[in-house]
Amino acid sequence: MNFASDNWAGATPQVMAALVRANDGAAPAYGSDALTKRVTGLFAEVFETPVEIWFTATGTASNSLGLAALSRPGGVVFCAKDAHIQSDESGATEFQSGGMKLIDVTSPLGKVDAGTLAAALARHPDGGRSVPVALSLTNATEWGTVYSVAEVTELSRVARGRGLAVHMDGARFGNAVAALGVTPAEITWKAGVDFLSFGGTKNGCWAAEAIVCFKPGLFADMEQRRQRAGHTFSKARFVAAQFEAYLSDGNWLRWAGTANARAEQLRAGLRGNGAARLAWENAANEVFAVLPKAAIARVRDAGGSLYEWPAEGTGVSLGAGEEVVRLVTSWTTGEAEVARFLELVR
Amino acid sequence: MNFASDNWAGATPQVMAALVRANDGAAPAYGSDALTKRVTGLFAEVFETPVEIWFTATGTASNSLGLAALSRPGGVVFCAKDAHIQSDESGATEFQSGGMKLIDVTSPLGKVDAGTLAAALARHPDGGRSVPVALSLTNATEWGTVYSVAEVTELSRVARGRGLAVHMDGARFGNAVAALGVTPAEITWKAGVDFLSFGGTKNGCWAAEAIVCFKPGLFADMEQRRQRAGHTFSKARFVAAQFEAYLSDGNWLRWAGTANARAEQLRAGLRGNGAARLAWENAANEVFAVLPKAAIARVRDAGGSLYEWPAEGTGVSLGAGEEVVRLVTSWTTGEAEVARFLELVR
Amino acid sequence: MNFASDNWAGATPQVMAALVRANDGAAPAYGSDALTKRVTGLFAEVFETPVEIWFTATGTASNSLGLAALSRPGGVVFCAKDAHIQSDESGATEFQSGGMKLIDVTSPLGKVDAGTLAAALARHPDGGRSVPVALSLTNATEWGTVYSVAEVTELSRVARGRGLAVHMDGARFGNAVAALGVTPAEITWKAGVDFLSFGGTKNGCWAAEAIVCFKPGLFADMEQRRQRAGHTFSKARFVAAQFEAYLSDGNWLRWAGTANARAEQLRAGLRGNGAARLAWENAANEVFAVLPKAAIARVRDAGGSLYEWPAEGTGVSLGAGEEVVRLVTSWTTGEAEVARFLELVR
Amino acid sequence: MNFASDNWAGATPQVMAALVRANDGAAPAYGSDALTKRVTGLFAEVFETPVEIWFTATGTASNSLGLAALSRPGGVVFCAKDAHIQSDESGATEFQSGGMKLIDVTSPLGKVDAGTLAAALARHPDGGRSVPVALSLTNATEWGTVYSVAEVTELSRVARGRGLAVHMDGARFGNAVAALGVTPAEITWKAGVDFLSFGGTKNGCWAAEAIVCFKPGLFADMEQRRQRAGHTFSKARFVAAQFEAYLSDGNWLRWAGTANARAEQLRAGLRGNGAARLAWENAANEVFAVLPKAAIARVRDAGGSLYEWPAEGTGVSLGAGEEVVRLVTSWTTGEAEVARFLELVR
Repeated sequence: MNFASDNWAGATPQVMAALVRANDGAAPAYGSDALTKRVTGLFAEVFETPVEIWFTATGTASNSLGLAALSRPGGVVFCAKDAHIQSDESGATEFQSGGMKLIDVTSPLGKVDAGTLAAALARHPDGGRSVPVALSLTNATEWGTVYSVAEVTELSRVARGRGLAVHMDGARFGNAVAALGVTPAEITWKAGVDFLSFGGTKNGCWAAEAIVCFKPGLFADMEQRRQRAGHTFSKARFVAAQFEAYLSDGNWLRWAGTANARAEQLRAGLRGNGAARLAWENAANEVFAVLPKAAIARVRDAGGSLYEWPAEGTGVSLGAGEEVVRLVTSWTTGEAEVARFLELVR
Repeated sequence: MNFASDNWAGATPQVMAALVRANDGAAPAYGSDALTKRVTGLFAEVFETPVEIWFTATGTASNSLGLAALSRPGGVVFCAKDAHIQSDESGATEFQSGGMKLIDVTSPLGKVDAGTLAAALARHPDGGRSVPVALSLTNATEWGTVYSVAEVTELSRVARGRGLAVHMDGARFGNAVAALGVTPAEITWKAGVDFLSFGGTKNGCWAAEAIVCFKPGLFADMEQRRQRAGHTFSKARFVAAQFEAYLSDGNWLRWAGTANARAEQLRAGLRGNGAARLAWENAANEVFAVLPKAAIARVRDAGGSLYEWPAEGTGVSLGAGEEVVRLVTSWTTGEAEVARFLELVR
Repeated sequence: MNFASDNWAGATPQVMAALVRANDGAAPAYGSDALTKRVTGLFAEVFETPVEIWFTATGTASNSLGLAALSRPGGVVFCAKDAHIQSDESGATEFQSGGMKLIDVTSPLGKVDAGTLAAALARHPDGGRSVPVALSLTNATEWGTVYSVAEVTELSRVARGRGLAVHMDGARFGNAVAALGVTPAEITWKAGVDFLSFGGTKNGCWAAEAIVCFKPGLFADMEQRRQRAGHTFSKARFVAAQFEAYLSDGNWLRWAGTANARAEQLRAGLRGNGAARLAWENAANEVFAVLPKAAIARVRDAGGSLYEWPAEGTGVSLGAGEEVVRLVTSWTTGEAEVARFLELVR
Repeated sequence: MNFASDNWAGATPQVMAALVRANDGAAPAYGSDALTKRVTGLFAEVFETPVEIWFTATGTASNSLGLAALSRPGGVVFCAKDAHIQSDESGATEFQSGGMKLIDVTSPLGKVDAGTLAAALARHPDGGRSVPVALSLTNATEWGTVYSVAEVTELSRVARGRGLAVHMDGARFGNAVAALGVTPAEITWKAGVDFLSFGGTKNGCWAAEAIVCFKPGLFADMEQRRQRAGHTFSKARFVAAQFEAYLSDGNWLRWAGTANARAEQLRAGLRGNGAARLAWENAANEVFAVLPKAAIARVRDAGGSLYEWPAEGTGVSLGAGEEVVRLVTSWTTGEAEVARFLELVR
């Protein structure tokens, strides 16, 4: 009953097998090996367009190195208040970029909306001391909600109208794509996204993260930027191997689909539940629920894991003895596990 | 006949097996899992003292995050001219530290010596605009030479006399320890080293690097520093697994010993060679040789790999048609491979 | 009729005379001259406590260098949304500090209040990825309001309870002290302030800014930090001379008092005005008024200067054809000038 | 007998008078005043080409902000070992640029030469981990020597051949131009210099420093860069006023010429001196001499000031009881003062 995080799960058998295969013999270092080249081609296939990719150790590295590559003095990145780059990365983007500022343009449910963004841009006119540089959208968001193609398109239109680049933090990109039922291309570059932090780690890999750039040439000097940040793996093929398994045979969307289905099973069970309830509706593999403390205790006593979530700022009203909790599913989550949880919180 | 680099080799069977074992079931993220804790204990055993450790993605990250944690305005780090931090990291230490300066205090054979260091320190008196902060020694060095316990002790004495911290870049620490025949403790904290970039990647792992701090408390805020640099692996157990295999049963020193033995086989063969010769004598798993270009071509035609090395600044005089080359051995290098190479360059 | 800004005014005759006096003969550079030493003593007298001071070129430099000296990875500074450090300095604090984050804890009227701050601190527990480092208060604020001794004391109590340093941005410190009728000591260190950006430029100097530190030793390496930021004037005595005139004979408070009195004259005239009105009440030398556009045009046609102020976020409701404007008075503002303005907007 | 530094001297009467004139009335802040605009025109006249200029507080700020504007990850700036940016600025360029590295390409007499530079560039090929970005030349140098037009032209040719920008640190630019007898244009943009740190402070101003850019558009975002570094003076006219006096009527070259003439008087006296001698020949307003310690003591006893200079690395052989000293002249240095000094050291 691990609902603490999808990063508590291990790697899929396919990823492990690919690692074993990739271990055979010597190969050039720093990404000049054949496997890494093959994987670059796989990314282009999946996104139906030529892309530039750079592996990094973590999603935080992808987010901050990509945004930093666009840095300007006085630079501002717009994002949601609960965006990982704003709340969970110890100022990685500020640091890597030499001091850009992140400005909160949240609307309900952890998403930026176009009106809020337009108003914020109006407060930062061209030539001022603050220089709008980029819009960052997390998809799926930290609230488990997803941006639709229409929403991303509209946000990109507003952002690009002022010359901003559009970044998508895709730590759970597979879950978003699987939930939306669109192609990876439709929800990214076709909708105006310039670059993507593509995460495989949470969805069945060990450590497989990449910056995917849809505008070849946008990131001058990224090799040196990555090197000075300590993100140039010498044995890059161990990351490439993970991505090869990930992107082959639709594996990544199937694994994400499994996680999403278990989340939907959770949501369904909580909707019709007397004692517990959904904190808000969403679509990907994170579920936010209001539970009585006693129910939380029962889950933990049974060896289950989950995180409590601060209710403040969510708009959720809690009754006496209630808490908001976050439940995350992964490719390892089983139907029985979910059923057991639902029984415990009934 | 891979002599290009030890980072062209894959992971050892023991490391692969440990990864497979570690993949079983869910585990808390970000290093709070049981395996990571166990590995911390292993490090303490190997170094015979309590240590603090932080995993990072690369040696560059270990070097730069450790040195940056000691940063001061006007700060200066002393190192050899060919130190990896000076020549191969795209300014990682300057960047992570917010602008510290690296000052070259090389002496022959890629090593810092105490006299050169003392003279440099004298040129940077206390209270001046430049603030001496740390001494960084690579062991084994980029020239394949090693610092003895006596040398490290003397250098540390000079450095500490002015309040400097002492860093050891141990990208090839296993090779140094195996070559020196000392204990890990003797060549580090017992000789005055405050922290070590401990590298497993080049010596049989995939990506296993750690900052090892012998002065608990020296690195305040390292967790946040690592996080903002994007080096906090969520599934930390996959690094821990590699180190578990690495540090168990003396594996790391055996693997390093194999690489060193193959290097010695190379050196012995080149010493008694008419057409080729050693560029200089050294002790670890890198060999620098002077070869006729024709011999280099024969090696490459036979599928062998090696790197040419700039002769300028090495003090080596080249005859017509000669080049300096670097030959690196690893745990995978076989005796027959070496013999074949020696035959080709004869 | 300059109401655009107090930094449109020149230097007072006393400041000019001091500059001329200081120009006589040679004097050691970089602040080791006798005049700079004497001025340090003047600061100690004015604040009734030993202080450390460092001259800088601008208030932005004072703010950002002081806060940066306290920087930690993941560091967070709490301030008001309209704080100069947040809105008008092109990310100076983020930059100088290597990436600290500024978090908005505004309450009404451009001031931080203790409850808002306490709630924000609760969201950033010890040991988390964000590390609360400092509280920054502007006094007088960007809204022309002032923090009382009681308010600063309570805010400092909350901040220090979590180990935060307390900074006061005193770009208009003279106006605040004159408005409050307290001693400089009472509104700073006696109320829990650790360091102050002390501004003389807006209040009768040319360029006279200093970091004033009430906790000797708090700012290790400030000399080198200032040097690398390019803020170590070689001919420091020309800054010292300005401060000598400024701090002597109560000049600074008299000049600030004049500016405040003219602002009060403006406020009084606007309170009893049919066509115009105060946007909000305040106390120092900035007045915010709601004016019909036609009145603004009349002022400008008569050669007057003032700035329009975005109404959004101020809580002020505008009628048709109305704007919020900011009116700033200085030591040069005359009674007749104010009277003329009031006539024009009637 | 102040030979300690030209920055121990005050401002010229013309500069003081200009400050007094500029103090009359209100003027727009941040450089949008009429005087600042007029001064921009003066710079264009003096350099016979359109220029962009930005005032800063110090030469360190000019150097570091200009170079930082060209920063790239892995970036390298080539300069002489004793360049002020390398030895006296507490890492300002490294800091402002987010970690660029300064590489020493000195040749004799404190000057870079083209061969040394070319060799260094060859060691940093395109696409490598280090990225050559700029060449920085100090003119007059820290050794009191000057680069001729031919030397600057040749150095620029080599630098531009690899895409480097060429920077001139002109802390003593007036002294160089006066010594060379060339036009400001000839020794800068006509010789391949892209931007200049133009210093007035040492040569008769209080604090008058500017970045002068000969390639309009080279420095995108310099306004914001300057603001975030705290170098945007609000009352910019006080800097403009100094430059107005400085650049009018050939004042700056006359003042520099006076200082140079006094230095030549020193050199002449030392050439024919039995007890003392020149450490090396040079041309601007710094003189380096070898003096017996007893002579140094006599000068100091008579109230004179000078600095001892480390002989190490200069190639000067000292006899017993000898020291190298630096003697700096300024617009205030009188003939009698020099004569008195020469008498004392005879």
